Amino acid sequence: MRLFYDPNIDKNNTQFTLSEEESKHAVRVLRLSEGDHIGLMNGRGFLFSCEIAEAHPKRCLLNIVETNFEAPDPDVIHIAVAPTKQMERIEWFVEKAVEIGVTKITLLDCKNGERAKIKLDRLEKKAISAMKQSQRKYLPEIDDLTKFNDFISKYPTGLIAHCYDGEKSTFSEVFAKTNCPILIGPEGDFTLEEVKHALDKGYKTITLGKNRLRTETAALYACMNAKMTLDR
Amino acid sequence: MRLFYDPNIDKNNTQFTLSEEESKHAVRVLRLSEGDHIGLMNGRGFLFSCEIAEAHPKRCLLNIVETNFEAPDPDVIHIAVAPTKQMERIEWFVEKAVEIGVTKITLLDCKNGERAKIKLDRLEKKAISAMKQSQRKYLPEIDDLTKFNDFISKYPTGLIAHCYDGEKSTFSEVFAKTNCPILIGPEGDFTLEEVKHALDKGYKTITLGKNRLRTETAALYACMNAKMTLDR
Repeated sequence: MRLFYDPNIDKNNTQFTLSEEESKHAVRVLRLSEGDHIGLMNGRGFLFSCEIAEAHPKRCLLNIVETNFEAPDPDVIHIAVAPTKQMERIEWFVEKAVEIGVTKITLLDCKNGERAKIKLDRLEKKAISAMKQSQRKYLPEIDDLTKFNDFISKYPTGLIAHCYDGEKSTFSEVFAKTNCPILIGPEGDFTLEEVKHALDKGYKTITLGKNRLRTETAALYACMNAKMTLDR
Repeated sequence: MRLFYDPNIDKNNTQFTLSEEESKHAVRVLRLSEGDHIGLMNGRGFLFSCEIAEAHPKRCLLNIVETNFEAPDPDVIHIAVAPTKQMERIEWFVEKAVEIGVTKITLLDCKNGERAKIKLDRLEKKAISAMKQSQRKYLPEIDDLTKFNDFISKYPTGLIAHCYDGEKSTFSEVFAKTNCPILIGPEGDFTLEEVKHALDKGYKTITLGKNRLRTETAALYACMNAKMTLDR
């Protein structure tokens, strides 16, 4: 069943009109017509089985036939990462992290960061298509660029991966299932001041192995480490 | 230090001439000149510190100043995966898997596979640049398309990930450190016959979680699961 997404639909709807973009996709691109069935997700646990009542290319009208709800997973996987210079690399990370099961992504504005701003809508598009593709019922939250210190103030405990010397724990030793953001720095790494600030607040240093990883690889590895630890 | 790669250099060399391609890259692109120092890897554990003796754009001559050798890691991470229809997705997998520490990649020719042949040289280029980038001293082997049954005959035990029902183990329960290839199928999954054949031979079924993963995501997740299990 073809999957569509609209955050505005909820369990009280009996009919729903797709957005202009999704209507166009359904009617013009996929050539769906009256009577065809589609699935509609709201990214908050609901999947609605719908029948197309009016195949309008701008205002496709749906009758909701069946409603399914999946309770949220109590586990949290929150990755806070400095966006890469190449947009495609961070887009790729978002796609893969959503497939695996990330629940929240924050883009970190660090001293050595390579981006002053980011096209959040492009990342959200990637997240939505990955959510559909992996059949997840929840759309992860993606926070816009957040200053490093502001993030630490908001989340005073978590894990931080950096390349400086010092005592480091392996992921599974210190990962906590809830409210445990994992911080991944830019190509130039966090500054010593940033690391010290995080550790002073209560962060723990983790190692992601001895190979030097690109930012997006480290971020995905952290996400997969978390997923594997939670699934064990 | 700029890193270069040539499989033909070994510890007996005192001088070495870079290939035409690497010479062009060093002299024309990077504009390196006589007296500059570079690192040269052979993908088999050696890193040679070299000084440019003659900055010839086609036959750059190097004096070998110092030789370093890193013993191979005894651990094996062997991923056998059906290549994706989009070449860039399997190229992406190769880049990330090499960064993480894969030691061998086999491209599987499966019943539901989407590629009859593959540009192996492009994958090798990706592997080489990822090896340099992650500062690994060993270049993973990449086997060309191998028929599923031939692979099973050659490697009669290992792990297989598929989407059919039945008893499945989590990765860490059954992953063996050596000689344990992990099989990842095409978008259309392995056929039941392929799965049965592998299980009859002695393969074990693993689950990679409940989310539906793309082929390249599943392959990388398996690789990262292996790495995390080995590093624990």
